[in-house]
Amino acid sequence: MPVRYELIKECKHTGARLGKLYTPHGVIDTPAFMPVGTQATVKAMSPDELKDIGAQIILSNTYHLFIRPGHKLIEEAGGLHGFMNWDRPILTDSGGFQVFSLNELRKITEEGVEFKSHLDGTKHFFTPEYVMEIEESLGADIIMAFDECVSYPEEKEYVQKSMERTVRWLKRCKKAHKNIEEQSLFGIVQGGVFEDLRIESAKKTVDCDLPGYAIGGLSVGEPKNIMNDMIECTVPHLPKDKPRYLMGVGSPDSLIDGSLRGIDMFDCVLPTRIARNGTVMTSQGKLVIRNANYAEDFRPIDEECDCYTCKNFSRAYIRHLIKTGEILGARLTTIHNLRFLQNVMKGIRKAILDDNLISFRDDFFEKYGYDK
Amino acid sequence: MPVRYELIKECKHTGARLGKLYTPHGVIDTPAFMPVGTQATVKAMSPDELKDIGAQIILSNTYHLFIRPGHKLIEEAGGLHGFMNWDRPILTDSGGFQVFSLNELRKITEEGVEFKSHLDGTKHFFTPEYVMEIEESLGADIIMAFDECVSYPEEKEYVQKSMERTVRWLKRCKKAHKNIEEQSLFGIVQGGVFEDLRIESAKKTVDCDLPGYAIGGLSVGEPKNIMNDMIECTVPHLPKDKPRYLMGVGSPDSLIDGSLRGIDMFDCVLPTRIARNGTVMTSQGKLVIRNANYAEDFRPIDEECDCYTCKNFSRAYIRHLIKTGEILGARLTTIHNLRFLQNVMKGIRKAILDDNLISFRDDFFEKYGYDK
Repeated sequence: MPVRYELIKECKHTGARLGKLYTPHGVIDTPAFMPVGTQATVKAMSPDELKDIGAQIILSNTYHLFIRPGHKLIEEAGGLHGFMNWDRPILTDSGGFQVFSLNELRKITEEGVEFKSHLDGTKHFFTPEYVMEIEESLGADIIMAFDECVSYPEEKEYVQKSMERTVRWLKRCKKAHKNIEEQSLFGIVQGGVFEDLRIESAKKTVDCDLPGYAIGGLSVGEPKNIMNDMIECTVPHLPKDKPRYLMGVGSPDSLIDGSLRGIDMFDCVLPTRIARNGTVMTSQGKLVIRNANYAEDFRPIDEECDCYTCKNFSRAYIRHLIKTGEILGARLTTIHNLRFLQNVMKGIRKAILDDNLISFRDDFFEKYGYDK
Repeated sequence: MPVRYELIKECKHTGARLGKLYTPHGVIDTPAFMPVGTQATVKAMSPDELKDIGAQIILSNTYHLFIRPGHKLIEEAGGLHGFMNWDRPILTDSGGFQVFSLNELRKITEEGVEFKSHLDGTKHFFTPEYVMEIEESLGADIIMAFDECVSYPEEKEYVQKSMERTVRWLKRCKKAHKNIEEQSLFGIVQGGVFEDLRIESAKKTVDCDLPGYAIGGLSVGEPKNIMNDMIECTVPHLPKDKPRYLMGVGSPDSLIDGSLRGIDMFDCVLPTRIARNGTVMTSQGKLVIRNANYAEDFRPIDEECDCYTCKNFSRAYIRHLIKTGEILGARLTTIHNLRFLQNVMKGIRKAILDDNLISFRDDFFEKYGYDK
């Protein structure tokens, strides 16, 4: 069965919506945040810990897995689910974002993208058809179409050309995608920061009639208000009965802002990456645990948090672990940040149910502050 | 209550013995292996995972904790038990081994050792009295006396002088040690690879009448048969009603060889260190999981193992994690190696009970091979 979205409730005062996304590996309450497991592991976490923090679905990266250990090996292991021992839903990106980030190492044609591995310089060629083959080997519940994610800022002319190619590639993806019962292909709306291009892209993407739609190419350097404008102009052109996924976004304020505008799914490396560097998110805002002022602070990271870290360890101890480069430090901060975001999402879902997401946002920002 | 050793059974055919060591934080079945938590964390492990693999007691390092985060901070946190959230027994070494390993960075006098921090070059001075003060702040159940661990090879004349100073330092430690109800001071037998010095050291150390005795200065480069000879000549001079701890030893064969000669406690960074580098111990010998021949090996590390890693993950997946430098790789190999050693110790204890430790050793070596 392809994924199916059930709209449970629309917020009275905003575009926010509460839903359920049914997938072959389980049901996801939306809006949902997906932790990122780039190399078939959410960095520092075990699958059991991911369940403990409440992860309903994780994302993994096609480009990285293609490079190492190779999609054929993962297929042999029973797909990503078997390989990494994760029995809940998985979404794989298409490698588009990573390939285009390689800059001088890649060359785009209508046929696809030639690129060199960031690891050993070996040459590879991704086409929409080949990416579908790779993603089918990986076996995720949701697979993303091969798109071009343009950088910011970029000339409108190029953005338009690129967006149109992305639509052509989407059609080739759809045609090449075989395993439609177990894997659902999502199309990606592009169009940079140009409202008319976003609308055009949304319409053309929706014309392909897919089980879900993503908004890509945002949070790549543009101001937050532009990102929000782009979401606002796109969402009305996406069907109500399909999930909407805002790619690469995961700061708490953007999760709230996105939800307010009708987004159902998010992903981002932010919570796990800043965790390993010793920055944690708390109900009172971000906290750099390496700082000397936490050396003798025997309180938990966040007194309001229910995670394993906050129930068992002090800021002083975690600071010591991070300062000395101990693995347990990265583990404890990662557990906390991921749990913190799951709790933000839980709060968002409850606020939608109670029709008070705007006051939830105001209360949250008052305490947490607004990330610039 | 100081620690108390209960001798349960002596092996009929060897010097091995089964016992129980009662400590303020719980009872330890001996012979026992102690995982090492140098910086108030057993690298890559959480306290819960340590319990899952069956760790009865862990060791932590006075020198490292003195340098970072400082013993006063740990005292404020409720000692090491509170600081790292570990409620089972802890043993702290005295920093002697680390300080003497600093080589050009330290200067020994009768009063103590002046040394420079390996981190920032700051000067410090360890005396037996100061080390007792530090170890009392750390609050471990068992604290080691400040000794000099001579390197190998070393002139007999120097070894004798050093051993005699270690005895004088032990007397100063005993005099300075205040918290005798909650912390038990162990003396350390030295004497290099010289039988007569080992015997003299054992006698003089035992004269101090302490709750336990260690054999130090072995496994520092000498051949294994010499190490075994030194254990054999020392043990008869140690009282039967006190625990015997062989310091810094932890390869499976040495655990068996030491147990055969009447040792009750062991510690070593080996299982955790090699784990992080991708070497795992199995019932069939060591296995370098990074090697290409495990790339498509979907079996667990060790089919006979009952650890979390072996129950849930394949060699292929663990190899991928280790090759890509993922934290979960180090976690999974560490869990496995520590569980493996706990199972070796369990096997040793059962073999003592059944009076067949020699055949246990022969069977083990036949499958595992003998570490050179």
